[in-house]
Amino acid sequence: MAQLHFQLQHTDKDSSARAGMITTDHGTIQTPIFMPVGTAGSVKAVTQAQLENEVKAQIILGNTYHLYLRPGLEVLEKAGGLHQFNQWKHPVLTDSGGFQVFSLAGTRKIKEEGVTFASHIDGSKHLFTPERVMDIQRSIGGDIIMAFDECPPGGSEYEYARKSLDLTHRWLDRCFTQFNQTPDKYGYTQNLFPIVQGATYKDLRKESCEYVSEKNAPGNAIGGLSVGEPEDKMYEICDWCCQHLPKEKPRYLMGVGTPWNILECIGMGIDMFDCVMPTRNGRNAMLFTTEGVINIDNKKWEFDYSPIDAGLPNPMSHLYSKAYLRHLFKSGELLALTIASVHNLAFYLWLVGEARKQIIAGTYNAWKNQMIVKLKNRL
Amino acid sequence: MAQLHFQLQHTDKDSSARAGMITTDHGTIQTPIFMPVGTAGSVKAVTQAQLENEVKAQIILGNTYHLYLRPGLEVLEKAGGLHQFNQWKHPVLTDSGGFQVFSLAGTRKIKEEGVTFASHIDGSKHLFTPERVMDIQRSIGGDIIMAFDECPPGGSEYEYARKSLDLTHRWLDRCFTQFNQTPDKYGYTQNLFPIVQGATYKDLRKESCEYVSEKNAPGNAIGGLSVGEPEDKMYEICDWCCQHLPKEKPRYLMGVGTPWNILECIGMGIDMFDCVMPTRNGRNAMLFTTEGVINIDNKKWEFDYSPIDAGLPNPMSHLYSKAYLRHLFKSGELLALTIASVHNLAFYLWLVGEARKQIIAGTYNAWKNQMIVKLKNRL
Repeated sequence: MAQLHFQLQHTDKDSSARAGMITTDHGTIQTPIFMPVGTAGSVKAVTQAQLENEVKAQIILGNTYHLYLRPGLEVLEKAGGLHQFNQWKHPVLTDSGGFQVFSLAGTRKIKEEGVTFASHIDGSKHLFTPERVMDIQRSIGGDIIMAFDECPPGGSEYEYARKSLDLTHRWLDRCFTQFNQTPDKYGYTQNLFPIVQGATYKDLRKESCEYVSEKNAPGNAIGGLSVGEPEDKMYEICDWCCQHLPKEKPRYLMGVGTPWNILECIGMGIDMFDCVMPTRNGRNAMLFTTEGVINIDNKKWEFDYSPIDAGLPNPMSHLYSKAYLRHLFKSGELLALTIASVHNLAFYLWLVGEARKQIIAGTYNAWKNQMIVKLKNRL
Repeated sequence: MAQLHFQLQHTDKDSSARAGMITTDHGTIQTPIFMPVGTAGSVKAVTQAQLENEVKAQIILGNTYHLYLRPGLEVLEKAGGLHQFNQWKHPVLTDSGGFQVFSLAGTRKIKEEGVTFASHIDGSKHLFTPERVMDIQRSIGGDIIMAFDECPPGGSEYEYARKSLDLTHRWLDRCFTQFNQTPDKYGYTQNLFPIVQGATYKDLRKESCEYVSEKNAPGNAIGGLSVGEPEDKMYEICDWCCQHLPKEKPRYLMGVGTPWNILECIGMGIDMFDCVMPTRNGRNAMLFTTEGVINIDNKKWEFDYSPIDAGLPNPMSHLYSKAYLRHLFKSGELLALTIASVHNLAFYLWLVGEARKQIIAGTYNAWKNQMIVKLKNRL
């Protein structure tokens, strides 16, 4: 069993896009990659067989905050970790719970020690410290686990962002200390990724990139983007961070984003993405397709018997028609949520797979610029 | 393309149970069979691939009332019928909408001509006549379609049941007249099954069986049971009807029931069943298993990592543990509804398949009596 390894296979000549391969104890991941979000140990409305066979997911996320509250660590530990519990045999990444504590939990208080918060389920009080969050992620058993950080709200003032970043860096040290003192729990190697913060301030972001890089972790993440700042600013900061993070490690942009966000950020050198958008928007009848964006509950699809997306390789997007999926949404059928979620995820995985092919072929930049226009098209 | 054919393959020596094979233009059905209910063109929370590969369904139902209201006949006709619309390539049975008009619709009025009712979706007014219901089912395109009948409420007085039965028989004549005057719509043969009514009155049921038998239809159904009468009365009437319906035609008991109901009624000579119970109860965390009944959201399953049901052949009931499924229900995850629905349907299909094997082996009655005790067990 070995630490996560990243092999950089190809770098685009006209952009900073890269193709690579991540090796973990639960298998390999071809980058760039999109990671479906399985918040409470399940990618919503999608079976694990559908993730494998339709979506072709290579790694999925679990949310530490949710899994810690429910089913709780005892259930996960006795199961032998999340892979055993939910029967997903490929790599898993868990976030640190930081983002959820700040976005979902009730009354919370940030102290040097950590964050106290009230569960959104039953109001019970909890304390997350960097050490505790390492222990929790050890128990959940992700192949990649994330540092516990403070996520300043979008549009934070410089002074707040400065103080927050200093705290995040002190917490980062404590995360690594605790991580290095504790053994892997289930016989395979877990890998801690630090997170770059610093809001929209380039000096803070550069400082954070340098601080994070010094940890010499097997991969690095960029957090605190796509939290309300303008899209141009997100691109600017993402690009800036990529320039200041080591080339030889995978770069993970957390919580981003639309298909065109993903293509732009691949062009900047991002290797890993996660986002709830394909599943959440799918459940709200919004489909991303190879021809553009579709609101499938729109009346215009009532008699459209063409496949949901003939441009995708997965069976489900070919089998069912737009008219049938529209009918399922209008009728409130649960199958609508499954089909739309599987389709959107299959689209995201197809998209990063195509990006990879284009990078290897040396045609990424031209392809990306054409593709973005097409994908933004409202059908 | 040919009329539905029933081949009686084996009759049990100790009971009236039979094993047979129904041949339709969309393939064969081995009886006894359970038919999952796909109300609005979808078996709730289950994909068509799961119906084929996990559940091993051989025929599914569609509800005429629901499909007529939504997506509506124009959408179904232009699709080329329900098989094309929902991509279920095996046989389909549609009910007549009678039961739903009486149980779901708003203000309704029964006249000699037919029934006027208000849609439960938008309150719009509609008229179902025997002729209209034949035309609607022609448009939906079921391989087996059902006569339009009046369903008297459970516990109806004799006088009401008498009048209702007479009306149902007059409507039956009109159904056959209209059916025989109209061509198949999509190139394959549709088959009209008449329905025996008569509430809990043996003389009415006998009269209805005789009336229905004279139609010489390719199959016959028993309606108006499991509508509130005591279980013993249901069994008594079902047995009585089986004795008065032709042996050489498949017998379909509509809307029944629990696993033990099904085993008892197979013993009386019923060949076909449908019921929403496996899917509806599944969505409410109630599982039928080879060991008995489970309320999977109960705390006792929190740490039970054994498979949902190791006694079933389908992958999903083996792959996921009771603890995981319980967690999904407690967390409100949509995947819970899919797993529970697939499991319960796979159980029902396994059960009728086992019954068939036992009938062929000549051991049905002894097996059934043991099995019923086991299946009723509350785990």
